[in-house]
Order: sequence, then C-alpha cells, then structure tokens
Amino acid sequence: MGTIGEHAASVSLIDHHVHGFWAADSPDAHDTRFASALLEADTAAVRSLDDGFDTQVGFAVRAHCAPLLGLERHCSATDYLRRRRELGETGVAQALLPAAGVAQWLVDTGFDVGLVSPEELAAVGGGVAHEVVRLEQIAEDAAAASGGYADAFVEILHRRAAGAVATKSILAYRGGFGGDLGDPPPALVELAAQRWRDDGGVRLTDRILLRFGLHRALDLGLPLQFHIGFGDRDADLAASNPLLLTDFLRDSGDTPIMLLHCYPFEREAGYLAQAFGNVHLDGGLAIHHLGARSGAFIARLLEMAPFSKLLYSSDGCGPAEFHHLGAALWRTGIARAVQSFVDADEWSRADAIRVIDMIAHGNARRVYRL
Amino acid sequence: MGTIGEHAASVSLIDHHVHGFWAADSPDAHDTRFASALLEADTAAVRSLDDGFDTQVGFAVRAHCAPLLGLERHCSATDYLRRRRELGETGVAQALLPAAGVAQWLVDTGFDVGLVSPEELAAVGGGVAHEVVRLEQIAEDAAAASGGYADAFVEILHRRAAGAVATKSILAYRGGFGGDLGDPPPALVELAAQRWRDDGGVRLTDRILLRFGLHRALDLGLPLQFHIGFGDRDADLAASNPLLLTDFLRDSGDTPIMLLHCYPFEREAGYLAQAFGNVHLDGGLAIHHLGARSGAFIARLLEMAPFSKLLYSSDGCGPAEFHHLGAALWRTGIARAVQSFVDADEWSRADAIRVIDMIAHGNARRVYRL
Amino acid sequence: MGTIGEHAASVSLIDHHVHGFWAADSPDAHDTRFASALLEADTAAVRSLDDGFDTQVGFAVRAHCAPLLGLERHCSATDYLRRRRELGETGVAQALLPAAGVAQWLVDTGFDVGLVSPEELAAVGGGVAHEVVRLEQIAEDAAAASGGYADAFVEILHRRAAGAVATKSILAYRGGFGGDLGDPPPALVELAAQRWRDDGGVRLTDRILLRFGLHRALDLGLPLQFHIGFGDRDADLAASNPLLLTDFLRDSGDTPIMLLHCYPFEREAGYLAQAFGNVHLDGGLAIHHLGARSGAFIARLLEMAPFSKLLYSSDGCGPAEFHHLGAALWRTGIARAVQSFVDADEWSRADAIRVIDMIAHGNARRVYRL
Repeated sequence: MGTIGEHAASVSLIDHHVHGFWAADSPDAHDTRFASALLEADTAAVRSLDDGFDTQVGFAVRAHCAPLLGLERHCSATDYLRRRRELGETGVAQALLPAAGVAQWLVDTGFDVGLVSPEELAAVGGGVAHEVVRLEQIAEDAAAASGGYADAFVEILHRRAAGAVATKSILAYRGGFGGDLGDPPPALVELAAQRWRDDGGVRLTDRILLRFGLHRALDLGLPLQFHIGFGDRDADLAASNPLLLTDFLRDSGDTPIMLLHCYPFEREAGYLAQAFGNVHLDGGLAIHHLGARSGAFIARLLEMAPFSKLLYSSDGCGPAEFHHLGAALWRTGIARAVQSFVDADEWSRADAIRVIDMIAHGNARRVYRL
Repeated sequence: MGTIGEHAASVSLIDHHVHGFWAADSPDAHDTRFASALLEADTAAVRSLDDGFDTQVGFAVRAHCAPLLGLERHCSATDYLRRRRELGETGVAQALLPAAGVAQWLVDTGFDVGLVSPEELAAVGGGVAHEVVRLEQIAEDAAAASGGYADAFVEILHRRAAGAVATKSILAYRGGFGGDLGDPPPALVELAAQRWRDDGGVRLTDRILLRFGLHRALDLGLPLQFHIGFGDRDADLAASNPLLLTDFLRDSGDTPIMLLHCYPFEREAGYLAQAFGNVHLDGGLAIHHLGARSGAFIARLLEMAPFSKLLYSSDGCGPAEFHHLGAALWRTGIARAVQSFVDADEWSRADAIRVIDMIAHGNARRVYRL
Repeated sequence: MGTIGEHAASVSLIDHHVHGFWAADSPDAHDTRFASALLEADTAAVRSLDDGFDTQVGFAVRAHCAPLLGLERHCSATDYLRRRRELGETGVAQALLPAAGVAQWLVDTGFDVGLVSPEELAAVGGGVAHEVVRLEQIAEDAAAASGGYADAFVEILHRRAAGAVATKSILAYRGGFGGDLGDPPPALVELAAQRWRDDGGVRLTDRILLRFGLHRALDLGLPLQFHIGFGDRDADLAASNPLLLTDFLRDSGDTPIMLLHCYPFEREAGYLAQAFGNVHLDGGLAIHHLGARSGAFIARLLEMAPFSKLLYSSDGCGPAEFHHLGAALWRTGIARAVQSFVDADEWSRADAIRVIDMIAHGNARRVYRL
C-alpha cells in the first residue's frame, strides 16, 4: 500500500477510551470467559466456544493476534485457547499491547470486572495512562455520602476530575436517550436522591439524577464521553441512537462531547459532529467486533464528520486482544479508505497522511489538552 | 473466482423461507402480473411494464433468468415477456427452479394467491418440502371454531405444527412491532376473540390476539419466523424495525427466532443475532430485489451476526424467477464478500468455505432439525 | 472508464432542485462565509477556516474547483480563498457553473440569503431556469393578505404556481414529519391563521397551517418537493426520516412527491419510491458534502428505487462551488457505480447508458413536463 499504509501502520495512537485488561486468570472458566467476550452484545455465557469464535472478531483474533502469540495466522480456536491458557492474561497482554502502538491510554475506571489499573495498563502496554471518571459511579458515591446529594455530587466530581481528563456517561444503559434531558430543578434532585437512598442506592436509573449528573459534567467542561449504539443487550440499542441527544447537544455549550462506538448509527453521529462544534465521535468497540468488515465501517465514519472531530479508540476491556485488534484493524482500515480516495485523485497524499495523524492522536491531544 | 466462487456456485441450499410459484397462467394479465411482482413494495398494478423492468430486480431477471429460458443475457423486456408467455408459469419454473440448487424448501403456506403446494414446488424444483404455518391463519381457524378461542388456537396450532417445521408471524403487517408484546391475560384473550368473532372474523389486527399467538408459538418451541423490514406497503416499514422486538426477544427463551428479509435494518438484525442466543436472520426477498447491489447487502449481513446465526432464503413467491434469483445472487454475493476477506488475509480459505456451508444449509439443518 | 464514464461526464443535466449563488461579495467575511458554508449542518460560523476545509466537501473543492479557477488540484485552502477573493462570487460562478453541464435549473426561490435570481443563475450557468415556489412563503403572504386565510393561500398558490414547475415544503424545518399530516378542517385553519396573524405572522410552525399548505399543494398537482434528512441543525434529523411521511404518501394520490437529499435515509427513501408510484428521490446536497465518499452514497441510491424515480439535483445554494461539485461528483459516482454493474455482467452497457440518461434529465423532463 506504499507510503500511506506504512504511515498508518506506525503512527502513534492515543486510545481515548479504553479499559484495563483482565487482571487475573480464570482457571475454571478461562476458555468460556474469552469466548463469551467475543459476543459483546450477549450478556449470557456462550453455549459453545465455537459460537464466540465463529464471528468476525473471532476470525480477527486468529488472524491478527495468533502470530504475536507464536501461532500460525488463522490457527484453530482450540490451539489459540491452549496458547492463551499457557501465557495467562498477563502474558497475552505483554505480547499484544505494545504492538498496538499506543502512546496514551484514556482509561474509563468506572467498570470494574477484575481489570488492571490505568498504571498497570500503561506499564504493560507502554506509554502513559490518564483517567476517565464515570458519572454514574460519582452518583453512587454521592448517594453514599452524608448531607445534600447535589453538593456531594459536585464535590466528588471536582475531586475526581482533578486527576482525570474526561467524564463518561452510560445513560445508554440507564434508560437511553429518550425524553427530557434538561437540567432538573434542585428540589427535585434532592427528592430523587432521597428516594434512591431509601431504596439502598442500587444501580442508578432515576432520570432526574442521571440528568443532574450530565449537566454538572457540562459545567465542569472536561470532555464528556457517551456510550452510543453497539454494546451489550443491557442497553436498548434503539434508545441509544445519538439523534435522541440532539436537544441536549443544543444546550451543551462548549464542553466537548465524545460519541463513542456509534455502530450502527455512525452516519447519524457524523452528522451531529458536523452540526455541533463541540461534538466528536469514534468507532471503538465496533471496529474490532467487525473484523474483516471494519474497513467499510471506518469508511462510513469518514462521511459527514469534519476530520477534526474523529478520534481513535479501542474500548478494549478484558481480553488484551481487543486493545490490540482495535489498533491493528483501524490502521489497515483507515489506510485502505484514504488510499482509495488518493487513488481516485479526490484527496492529495499529503492530506491523507495529515488526516490519519489527526484521527490517530492530533484531535485527542487538542480536545483533552494532553 | 477460483475455489471459493466454484464452491458457492454449487453448494446445496436449504431455502428456509419460501412460498410456491404461480400455479396457473394469467392469460388476461400475464405481463402486468409479472411486471407488478417486480415492484414488491407497491400494492398497485404497474402503470407501465417498464416501471417494473427498470429496476435492479428487472435487470437481474434479464441477466440471470433469460439464458435459462433460451434467450440472450440482457435481452429486452419485450422478448422476455413473450418467452415466458410461451412457456407458461410451469414451464418457467421447470427451467429455473432446478438451477437454484435447493435441496430443501421450507414453505410458508399461509399466503395463498394461487400458488402451488409445497409438494408441487419440490416436484418441479427438486429436493423435498416442509411446511411453515402462519400464526394469523391459525387464529382465523380458531375464530371459526366453536368453544373457547384459546383452547381452539392451541389445539389447531399443535395439530398443524405436527406436520410442520416452523411457525411464521406477519405481525409487521398487522400493526407492527411497537407497544407491549407480552403474553396477555386469558380473560382478555376470550374477550378479544368474542369481539373479533362478532365482527365476522375478518383480517386479524387485534393486538391481544396477535400477542397471544406469538406466545403460544414460543411455548411450542418450533422456530418462529418474523417478517422484518422490506415487503409491500401494507406494512409500515418503520414499525417493522426489529429493534422494536427487543423486549419480546428478552422473554423468548430458547425458541429460535428467525428474522426474515431485514432490509434496511440488516445491521440492527445482526446486532440482535449477536445479543440473543436464539435469534437468527436472513436477507431473503431483499437479495433478489437488490439485483446488482445485493452483494453490498450480503456483505453487511456479515457484520455483527455470529456466522452460526445466518441462513439462506429466497422468499420466492409467485414468479419462479424469484426462487432462482435469490439463489443465484446469494451465490455470487457471498462468494465475492468472503473472497475479499480471504484476499486481504483476514479470513482463511477454509473458514470461508465453512461459513458458506453454514449459511447455505448447515445452520438451517441444525435449527430446524432437518 | 471508457464509454460509460465519458457518457456520464458529458450528459446534459436537469438540476431539479437548486438555489442561486451568492449575489454579492462579502468583503468583511469573505473567507469565513465560504468556510462556514462547508459545514452545512452547523448554523454557527466556523471557529477556524480549517474546520470548514478539513471535510470531504472541503477536499472536494480543492480537488475539483481549484483547477477551474486556475489553481493546482489540491492547492492549499489559503491559496483557494485568496483566488476566490480575487475573482469575487460572480467570477467564481462564471468559472464553475458552465462546467456543471446543466441545461435546466429548477430554482427554489423561497430561501433568500442574498442569492441571484433564477434568470441570473441561468445567464451565468447556461441553459434555462424555472421556479419552484415554497409553501411556507405562500403561507406568509396569505397571512399578510386581508380576508380569509384559506382563500388567500389558494389564490396566491395558484398565481405563483402559474409561473412555476413545482412546490416545495420545508416541513422538516418546521417541526418535522411526526404526527397527523391529514387535511385539517376549514374552521381550524381560520382559527390557526387568526392566532398566527395575532402573533405577527412570524416563522410558521403551526401544524394546522403547515398541513393545510401540503394538501393544497396536492390539489394543485404540480410536483411537491420535500426537504428530507441532511441539512442544517435547525431541523431535527430524526424528525425528517421519510418513513414518517408514509401515511401522508398513502393519501397523496397522483401528485408527484420529490424526496430531496435523503442522507442518511436514502435506503428508506428508495423503498418509498418503490412502494408509491408517485414518489421520487434524489441525493442532492449530500453528494457534494460527501466528496470522496459520494460514490458509495450514489450506489446506495441505486437499490430499491425504480430507475424511473431517481433524479439529479445539486441543491447548490450560496457558493457556486456547490452547483459545480454536485454535478462533477454525481457524474463520476454514477459512472463508477454502473460501470461496476456492467463489469460484473449484471447490467448491459446499453442499460447503463439509458439509466444515466433517465437520472440526468429524462425523469425530470417527464415529471416536471419540461
């Protein structure tokens, strides 16, 4: 692919939304835990290991990760699982993470399923780590605190944010984006908080408190990340269509809004990134799950969104394969897409290189002030 | 296209959702009946024959079917119509059906517009036929029976199902997927049935009775097929978005759910097939109507759905051209898609062949226990 | 690309939905006005000129328009802006418009932001101009007239329509397509008009009056154009999904309905064009904003819509670059799409040429009786 492909293969990445890899092996469920992770959307364990491996991401693991673990490209699932049992999660991560070529990891620490810390991720993967704090976790901490909920939320948010580069909302998993997302009146917030505290502060689904958290994140001004579209079935996919955020975006001022994942709403998200100066997007999570089809998805991301609004992320979480595949597939996918534009003489080669750099790290560096 | 193309061209198919071809010629309307069928979505007769032929499916008929009827590839519509008048519907079917390479036909018998029986379809097309029974037809029979509606429905369903391999719902044509799809209370079912009987048992649109039928089909446990997306305008396309079925799917247990057609919601359907272990999908009906663009659609079907969840169908109904085109276009489309993955070294050649076999017949054999 | 590419490059176009180019230079804001126009969806001025130029349309301007202004292909944004300051808006239009190869311009005169008249557009661009009248403008004139609103609306509509070829609705910008779009009772119309007149006849958003206007346009029988999908953020993109028009289309009789732009709902619009004999569509506005990705969009337009239902438009408005790019990108995009069909032997070469002619001008000539 000549210069463009080589450039994309080696450009330094900022993974602006990622989680840790699995901190510990799972001796009793090593294979099923991994195969289940290959079916992101399904919250149940896989019925058979093949169900996980007979997917685009399963094929991509055997194509891209196997050689780095000393196996043949396209080796069998059985051989792959045996090898990753031998290496253990840390061994797999040591083999795969540095090859992702990531210089900075922005780590969402709000989803703890036995993952390594940001520091441990960077220690294995190279580069440095920064923290992204989840609003719903701050809400839980505020509910557990004494005194007024609103004051506690703001205090904790500012304390946590002092060491973080962004906030993150999983409103998609807490009822979705439909309905009023305006800033609720203070009196309602305290009433809702009292109700939630009386219920024991379980999983937050109260709309008043969710909306309150979003608006305090807007006040804070750090980039605010939203889970959009593809994820597990705990979220209703239709309710995470980013167009449902349109009115919220109209009121979001200058706080950068980061639409994550976006599949299958990537064209809608791209429109929003053109419509609102503070809206950005990526294709993380979807890219590795799309495997051989990720190139078509990456090309669609290059439609209506201004190039200054596109970022790279893997959303890797659990198996270190995902942190690696996100990068490997993005590198080949972006190269193929922009090479086709250059071949048609629609883009110059210099622009193609420049846009790759913007998405790989330039835009993230600017937006997150890294 | 080498080995993959040859394999796809000859692999044996199970057409898991199909109807009969036209049982009789239509001397007065032979040409308009055919041209109207080329505009699936339009329930009115074509204004001119060209309106039907100047479509992707019209061009595909002239490209793929003409040579099998002794005409030149891309012959004129006029020549094509003259030749199919000479042959009659049965002659056309005899020329086209065996060339589809279908070993088993799963025939929805609930839509009778003068079509041959499953046995006649198999006699002409080769292979064997199985029946798929429509829930709405069973509802009509239950309304016509004496005694309690619920008992009659269950009795007829089990009797019909004893000789069938699946059930089928056209809820998309009876108000769509919006709203509550839970199992209604028995008392409401009898009240709704009484109201419907009093009205003369016309076309079933009562939501209580439609929901009742779905849940009895879940109890039965045979695969339950749903019309999704593209079809004629009697259905509201937006109301047949499969994401509206999400809550229903959460409660559907282990009964296999088969999402049919899916255009333009194939990516949403693929997500559901990943999210729920019992959900499957196909691209029937859309594939032949997309003609030269069917390859792009087939490639999109290969995104989020696990490969064990994809099936082949034609949804041929009326003109035997559709039974043939469904197969011919699927064969070239799947070959081109997976060949491109192999060429990029994302898939192995062996996996490509294996996935073709799974979609062509392997998954259907497993799900329908054929 | 051989014969097909050459044919597409020179075929005469009817631009069936377009506006004038900027009538006057903007000495104080020449560069920012242009760069802001590159971000169609954003109603705010660009923060930096790069934000506008680092887009698909920005790259397309530098690729396609620069050479016609005497610059190198892919020249810098700075050079491009300097050159267009030198030439002025009229100079730019003189360089770019004739090269679009448009024989007839159907000009929506209802959006006046300092644009040239239809006659001036044709004088510079070549060919002849026709007028398209906006229903919302007629409503404003009817509100300003004395006497009954309904009578005034009908009188003005007929007077304006006598010199026009079509009507246009921007319902997408006035609340969208949701809810009842039936013909309102006359008494309600006069009440709503009185309320609007009492409010000073500002921007029309009253649903009763908007619906009234649509149905009078149906009565009139001239083609009725609808803004669909992509546009600026004053419209809620989700509310301009054309599937929300389905019930309205069921009642629209024989009046041709023209769905404009359609991104990202082009597949939904194509379905409607197959489902309803009077529904047509185009990809104007989106084509030039998609730049190097416009070919993929044009290919998707060639899915479910009968070829007799597709038209060409640029929706150029303001910078003459858009009038030119719409044509240039459509010509290469349609050629590449149909050439791929011919290369696969799915279409004949003669059909490919014929379909290009239908979309370029044949369908518009028939529908608008030009």
